[in-house]
Amino acid sequence: MPKRPSTRTPVIGVMGGSKAAPAVVAMAEELGARIARRGWVLLTGGRNQGVMAAASRGAKRAGGTVIGILPDTTAHRASPDLDFAILTGMGDARNLINVLSSDVVIACPGKMGTLSEIALALNHARPVILLGFEAGPLFDSYIRRSLLTSAASPADAITQTAAILGAT
Amino acid sequence: MPKRPSTRTPVIGVMGGSKAAPAVVAMAEELGARIARRGWVLLTGGRNQGVMAAASRGAKRAGGTVIGILPDTTAHRASPDLDFAILTGMGDARNLINVLSSDVVIACPGKMGTLSEIALALNHARPVILLGFEAGPLFDSYIRRSLLTSAASPADAITQTAAILGAT
Amino acid sequence: MPKRPSTRTPVIGVMGGSKAAPAVVAMAEELGARIARRGWVLLTGGRNQGVMAAASRGAKRAGGTVIGILPDTTAHRASPDLDFAILTGMGDARNLINVLSSDVVIACPGKMGTLSEIALALNHARPVILLGFEAGPLFDSYIRRSLLTSAASPADAITQTAAILGAT
Amino acid sequence: MPKRPSTRTPVIGVMGGSKAAPAVVAMAEELGARIARRGWVLLTGGRNQGVMAAASRGAKRAGGTVIGILPDTTAHRASPDLDFAILTGMGDARNLINVLSSDVVIACPGKMGTLSEIALALNHARPVILLGFEAGPLFDSYIRRSLLTSAASPADAITQTAAILGAT
Repeated sequence: MPKRPSTRTPVIGVMGGSKAAPAVVAMAEELGARIARRGWVLLTGGRNQGVMAAASRGAKRAGGTVIGILPDTTAHRASPDLDFAILTGMGDARNLINVLSSDVVIACPGKMGTLSEIALALNHARPVILLGFEAGPLFDSYIRRSLLTSAASPADAITQTAAILGAT
Repeated sequence: MPKRPSTRTPVIGVMGGSKAAPAVVAMAEELGARIARRGWVLLTGGRNQGVMAAASRGAKRAGGTVIGILPDTTAHRASPDLDFAILTGMGDARNLINVLSSDVVIACPGKMGTLSEIALALNHARPVILLGFEAGPLFDSYIRRSLLTSAASPADAITQTAAILGAT
Repeated sequence: MPKRPSTRTPVIGVMGGSKAAPAVVAMAEELGARIARRGWVLLTGGRNQGVMAAASRGAKRAGGTVIGILPDTTAHRASPDLDFAILTGMGDARNLINVLSSDVVIACPGKMGTLSEIALALNHARPVILLGFEAGPLFDSYIRRSLLTSAASPADAITQTAAILGAT
Repeated sequence: MPKRPSTRTPVIGVMGGSKAAPAVVAMAEELGARIARRGWVLLTGGRNQGVMAAASRGAKRAGGTVIGILPDTTAHRASPDLDFAILTGMGDARNLINVLSSDVVIACPGKMGTLSEIALALNHARPVILLGFEAGPLFDSYIRRSLLTSAASPADAITQTAAILGAT
């Protein structure tokens, strides 16, 4: 992972589907809240939908800071809980920015958009924690290198994130 | 798949690792040659490495047309077999362009870059044919929708591509 | 200018407004035709509007080859005269690709989009020929370095382009 | 200008050359400090050079918040004064993000990169204030629409920014 200057707060990227079942929404909201309580910054894809919206809401209610990297040229579809709305106007090309800008990426259930983010993160040596995202055997070599791990719960994801941040 | 105007020749995107074993290089070269012989245009990531270079070389020797979508601002690292070098200067963000610009995507063995391209292609409803790329159970729902298939050989990939193009 | 491999045909980018007066349309169409007759490839922003559409039409009718770099994820708004439609899905971020991929950029009348392309071209050392685009004193230092010139007509722009290509 | 949700702090983008004369550095530093004292967020291109670095330093010393939108995949060349480093990995394509993400853009002396940002900002209806950037007659129609103005000093730029923000 690229060295993070000590003057900046860790940024934790939470990725996941723009459509999410109630249980996933609850999990993402808890995850966002736990990130905020640790004093870390939450980064999401910024839209007012699914995992992005839930994590942002959780973090905001817990007093945290939220950055959204939007695919759009305007903020009309942004989550209301963003502190900072980065408007890229680049559609899914912004998926690369999401993961490059995160010190650790946590992947919640999602589909192809989320999978592209996991792949791009690993391609650029960003650590990824899977939280309910079933990745299959594709990623075996990354698991062996410890760049990719699985978490059993939001609390577990946070513990793993702290270990990664402490180790860098 | 977005409708392709009848005035344009089909564009077949061949994705795969920038490092490739000799057997994969041979397969990609054969695939490029077969695409060219069908009269289709080959599109790759443009670099002078791995699957990109092999497919381009195969297509060029068979008299075909090759477009490369490069991550770079200059052509210094481009395959010598490109007819058209599109310079994006955008690094891996160009992976999205590779698949959006292809009528059909054929995924040869590769790692996270290739996986990100498969994911982005499916996310934008471009048909994907896996040729030696082991994708795992992640893509099951796409296989059921026939947007994703597997091919046993370059010849098989070409037959499947023709079927997809005929069906659109 | 980055060195162009001898195996590739020169690519001439024609930029200009998506809205264009009849005289500008006629000029862009003539310019496209002259580029085609020289055996060069025309590159435009790809949309079925203004200078892009006119230059593409002119080149196509003269038997040339046309590449369009579209801001969109689909080809629904593409000029019907493109041989190759590169779909970026990146909106105005594709302006950078337009100029990086051109050996010479010719700027017809346009507004801020065209101006951003002139600026990005010069920033990456691509030669720019102004054809009816009033650039003002901003570019004086570039004119002194010969990276930027003015042409009085499409024929003059072609003569200048040939001189630039011959010199590289 | 796109509507800014009331829950977000205004973001003021400061653009300018990566090389800057001492007087320009001093001006950019004062401008950053004044933005911070107003309670606004400063957004820059993020690098540790020229106007970007100077404005960031000024804002940080005045207790402000600084976002940098970097062209790079890592933070190795980032200003040490950023609170948030957005890593795009997209080179100059990130210029579009700089201006889309700013409620008001202030353009300090710079060259083609800065000019591309002014052009892209106006193309997307972001207000631009020129502070020492000589834009020439190109922008006359924008000045008439009040989307583009000139400021005589950092203090004047701040007064104009406040007026724009109050008016939206």
